[in-house]
Amino acid sequence: MCEAKVYLLHGDENLLVMEAVDRIEPVEEGVRLENIFGEQKFVQAEIQSLSLVENRVVLKAKKSE
Amino acid sequence: MCEAKVYLLHGDENLLVMEAVDRIEPVEEGVRLENIFGEQKFVQAEIQSLSLVENRVVLKAKKSE
Repeated sequence: MCEAKVYLLHGDENLLVMEAVDRIEPVEEGVRLENIFGEQKFVQAEIQSLSLVENRVVLKAKKSE
Repeated sequence: MCEAKVYLLHGDENLLVMEAVDRIEPVEEGVRLENIFGEQKFVQAEIQSLSLVENRVVLKAKKSE
């Protein structure tokens, strides 16, 4: 299986947001995640980078100004 | 291996942009793709959706106004 771990970049750290993520959909205000168990999560962030070979997605928080 | 096929949504069709994609990085003007062979491609588009289980990424063209 090729599901990924999704991290949120926070300062110098990557906080784990969700494991076993299948679907990722950027929406107006952030990113919607869904894992292989059907659990959904919404994060106020945007995609910074993906490495599919490493099964790793990094999000960064959206600037709220 | 978990690399994906990247498609560009074009009307009702999905045009295949690149196969065996490892890295995806949204940048200011579009999306940078890199496949497992180290080939790079830049597309003036944004990510519409990803399904990691289906190894499928769909991009949509950025509106140029």
